[in-house]
Amino acid sequence: MHRYRSHTCAALRKSDVGSTARISGWVHRVRDHGGVLFIDLRDHYGITQVVADPDSPAFKLAETVRGEWVIRIDGLVKARTEDTINKNMPTGEIELYAQEIEVLSAAKELPLPVFGEPDYPEDVRLKFRFLDLRRETLHRNIVKRTQVISSMRRHMGEVGFTEYSTPILTASSPEGARDFLVPSRIHPGTFYALPQAPQQYKQLLMVAGFDRYFQIAPCFRDEDPRADRLPGEFYQLDLEMSFVTQEDVWNTMGPLMTQVFEEFADGKPVTKEWPRIPYDEAIRKYGTDKPDLRNPIVMEAVTDHFAGSGFKVFANMIASNPKVQVWAIPAKTGGSRAFCDRMNAWAQSQGQPGLGYIFWRKEGEKLEGAGPLAKNIGEERTDAIRTQLGLGDGDACFFVAGDPDKFYKFAGEARTRAGEELNLVDRDRFELCWIVDFPFFEWSEEEKKVDFAHNPFSMPQGGLEALQSQDPLTIKAFQYDAVCNGFEIASGSIRNQSPEIMVAAFEKIGLSQSDVEERFGGLYRAFQYGAPPHGGAAFGIDRIIMLLVGAKNLREISLFPMNQQAQDLLMGAPSPATPTQLRELAIRPVPPVKKD
Amino acid sequence: MHRYRSHTCAALRKSDVGSTARISGWVHRVRDHGGVLFIDLRDHYGITQVVADPDSPAFKLAETVRGEWVIRIDGLVKARTEDTINKNMPTGEIELYAQEIEVLSAAKELPLPVFGEPDYPEDVRLKFRFLDLRRETLHRNIVKRTQVISSMRRHMGEVGFTEYSTPILTASSPEGARDFLVPSRIHPGTFYALPQAPQQYKQLLMVAGFDRYFQIAPCFRDEDPRADRLPGEFYQLDLEMSFVTQEDVWNTMGPLMTQVFEEFADGKPVTKEWPRIPYDEAIRKYGTDKPDLRNPIVMEAVTDHFAGSGFKVFANMIASNPKVQVWAIPAKTGGSRAFCDRMNAWAQSQGQPGLGYIFWRKEGEKLEGAGPLAKNIGEERTDAIRTQLGLGDGDACFFVAGDPDKFYKFAGEARTRAGEELNLVDRDRFELCWIVDFPFFEWSEEEKKVDFAHNPFSMPQGGLEALQSQDPLTIKAFQYDAVCNGFEIASGSIRNQSPEIMVAAFEKIGLSQSDVEERFGGLYRAFQYGAPPHGGAAFGIDRIIMLLVGAKNLREISLFPMNQQAQDLLMGAPSPATPTQLRELAIRPVPPVKKD
Repeated sequence: MHRYRSHTCAALRKSDVGSTARISGWVHRVRDHGGVLFIDLRDHYGITQVVADPDSPAFKLAETVRGEWVIRIDGLVKARTEDTINKNMPTGEIELYAQEIEVLSAAKELPLPVFGEPDYPEDVRLKFRFLDLRRETLHRNIVKRTQVISSMRRHMGEVGFTEYSTPILTASSPEGARDFLVPSRIHPGTFYALPQAPQQYKQLLMVAGFDRYFQIAPCFRDEDPRADRLPGEFYQLDLEMSFVTQEDVWNTMGPLMTQVFEEFADGKPVTKEWPRIPYDEAIRKYGTDKPDLRNPIVMEAVTDHFAGSGFKVFANMIASNPKVQVWAIPAKTGGSRAFCDRMNAWAQSQGQPGLGYIFWRKEGEKLEGAGPLAKNIGEERTDAIRTQLGLGDGDACFFVAGDPDKFYKFAGEARTRAGEELNLVDRDRFELCWIVDFPFFEWSEEEKKVDFAHNPFSMPQGGLEALQSQDPLTIKAFQYDAVCNGFEIASGSIRNQSPEIMVAAFEKIGLSQSDVEERFGGLYRAFQYGAPPHGGAAFGIDRIIMLLVGAKNLREISLFPMNQQAQDLLMGAPSPATPTQLRELAIRPVPPVKKD
Repeated sequence: MHRYRSHTCAALRKSDVGSTARISGWVHRVRDHGGVLFIDLRDHYGITQVVADPDSPAFKLAETVRGEWVIRIDGLVKARTEDTINKNMPTGEIELYAQEIEVLSAAKELPLPVFGEPDYPEDVRLKFRFLDLRRETLHRNIVKRTQVISSMRRHMGEVGFTEYSTPILTASSPEGARDFLVPSRIHPGTFYALPQAPQQYKQLLMVAGFDRYFQIAPCFRDEDPRADRLPGEFYQLDLEMSFVTQEDVWNTMGPLMTQVFEEFADGKPVTKEWPRIPYDEAIRKYGTDKPDLRNPIVMEAVTDHFAGSGFKVFANMIASNPKVQVWAIPAKTGGSRAFCDRMNAWAQSQGQPGLGYIFWRKEGEKLEGAGPLAKNIGEERTDAIRTQLGLGDGDACFFVAGDPDKFYKFAGEARTRAGEELNLVDRDRFELCWIVDFPFFEWSEEEKKVDFAHNPFSMPQGGLEALQSQDPLTIKAFQYDAVCNGFEIASGSIRNQSPEIMVAAFEKIGLSQSDVEERFGGLYRAFQYGAPPHGGAAFGIDRIIMLLVGAKNLREISLFPMNQQAQDLLMGAPSPATPTQLRELAIRPVPPVKKD
């Protein structure tokens, strides 16, 4: 018989009854039922119930074992009696009668209970992560994480992608976030950088003639703690394709991600045909470029109904500035004064002057618009609004007025809040879409100049001609995001692989050819020697897994995460370097400059 | 039709004749055959021959294209005439008659030719890696690399392993080599380290209750340039299993690696049942713990034949020191004075006094041992040696005498040289084996104390009892290497998961419990809370791929390698940091101390 186990703790079945088995694992819990000991023995695969009765030669030792000890048990497989069968456990029809027990590893008193996984402070969980990871939920999340990633790999391979690993010790690249630096010992005074993303390398791969690249890529950004990103490293499903248009990327990755989601969605519906929503339309309808499409509320402009109306606040705004619009946030089933007032109070708590509303109710046979706004604009306009939005008895509508550039975010938040408060959001589904046609440039209010709206690697729609002849703020990019349930899960673009268009684009934001060379030298040089049209995307793996397992915290789906202060409490990182290390690297820590 | 291609450059076949096709790719070469232009168009998948004749509307543009331009071609698929069919190309039965050409990206004059891949200085190849990677051999090597890794992943999954990613920003661990450090911005004066290997994390995973871990793991060691290791990062197939003995690791990984090798061996034989050779035996037979088993030479001790013999040099050595042995290196077909003298001269060039030998030749009917040694020890002893080694007419034997601890390396090199010079090595096969039972401790001559021979994580054979009662230098570890054709391709062990045995082992080398806690705190702590018996190995992916593609240089199988000075010539790393970066990280470069 094998030294440690003939079966895993998930393997024994009714068909094994009568045979001898050996299992090893952790003591999940011990119960004493009238002198007979029941030990739940747990391993990676499952749990088996072990029985040690006082007649057993193993009983004496069984009395001494405690939670989380690692033990080996030899025993006889017996059928459980009808009334003790546990249908929820794969091994629930049998129990193992212990004949011999060997303690493989005892455990000290636990700083963190495993069984029952009660709430526990996060610093203890992180410091004793090896115990935390034994807990059922976290263990299951991590296993699911590995399965999701494995599924992504498999599907990518099936549609012709090849996985290439790109360097981790590389050059600093001014891509947006802050780099982690690595001092070079051989070249004192110089530094490598950890990649914020393999962006330049994957594009170089396309220029090098490889065709469909992907990578489960570790990415590194030295950012201040954020709730939605772990300090240090995170993972992307990074991909790039040559000789493609953006439709090729969507047609490849949309169905693929639908398949991945469906595999882990536990039967929840997943969008099959991803809508492609232009950025401008997303802002207009949802007030965000990350719309939660499970929320059925679609905003509409109702400016005309307020122009020249008796509601002077809006009417005057409209009259004085052609940019001003009034957006309606229809809220089905929201037609009570209590709800409308709650929304109004919430808006004020957000620093808004308030949130105008109308709600409709039946007065006898008549459908009546209620609330101050309805009174001001009169019955006819109130009914025109109701008709436009398809509302009826018991529904409400909220209104936001002003320059949409300035209020769209708030309007989007009001839409989200109304949808959630009214339970209009169907939580048991995954709604996926592409947001497309992002603006290429944006106006930087701080710097009083045009800047790249997203990233400088994208191809502007219309190419060189657009850059030469069009108002830069009207130029769109071949740039897109994937969004699921209100979260951005991917971002991508068709790349600008023309040195000429690259220089022209940088000139628009006030940078010269030599700036391009300095910042993106490797890539800019490569584009001079035959670069194929190419494009791709990067999917945020951590976010996708959070959505699939329903976790709210990144640390619930990560193996050995750092805490929010970017410390690894388990291994004790970061830590001081030795004098020898500092001397070899030719660096000296200096006290940070105090800010007064 | 698709914007860029209806077919790849490897897709068109005789069955497509008569249809119109669109392909895109790089101009591999252009030939002018009496006014008709032949363009070989290349993409990731293959090459298609395009014909532009003077009647074609595409001819004028075709005349302008140069090597490595990226173009799109629309054309008519025609069958090649019988005498122009190229059987070596999948597309060799057709050619595409160009009707329209679009230049997608022109190329400047090439700093590095792609077609024909002539030798070129390495610094140019690394700086223009995106061109180098288009060359046939390197492109093929890289594709094979991805396939090997993908095959490893697939096979590991098939035998129940799960891939987990362990952190890359982690704690410094004194494992042997030098760490790369990453200054922490949030905690000034402290540093993360990049992992030399995920050793501690994979063991923590086992303690956390996961069962069969693997990872295609990036590893980082800041070592001085070595021919057999790229500066910076390298990849391991890292694995760990719980509740196993070392036989389980061998029985799992041997057959699996045989399968991987067979998949890429191009029909060359691969060892199916890996011999398990104890370390002591490997030293005795091959003079190395990395034996090339394709070399049939097996060394044997022949001390007795020289004891008290007429060859006084050896006889006196044997008489004066019981440690002294004489090892024989039998060299079939080496029986000529010219060869034996060449070996002797080589030995002298290696700083040895010389290499004694005997060779055998037929003199009439009589088999005669020739050379000075044979004369000195006489006919009977000469023949006894010949018989022991199974040698005959035309064979030779070399002899090394002294303390085997001191000469075994040289003896092993002499074995290698004899085998190679005599062409005894069958180069067209993969000979794999396990070297097992490595010593746990070794004597450090410099420090005049016992030290760990390999690594402190291994379990000593005999456990606590051996540590308490045995001469430490006789204790073996549950530690093993995998060797292929003379190269170490893996190393592994059953781990010491007992805090008690861990402390006892460290005490033997003069370290205390607090040293253990300081050096391996995370792991040592974890072992207190129920640690399963576990073990594993790490396979060197780069080395395996080199063996499989027959490359001599790591840069021939790596995508974006650094040069031997640890510089990335393509991206320009390492490079100076900006004052802002240094200020944020609270470090200052200091001029290195000059060594006089």
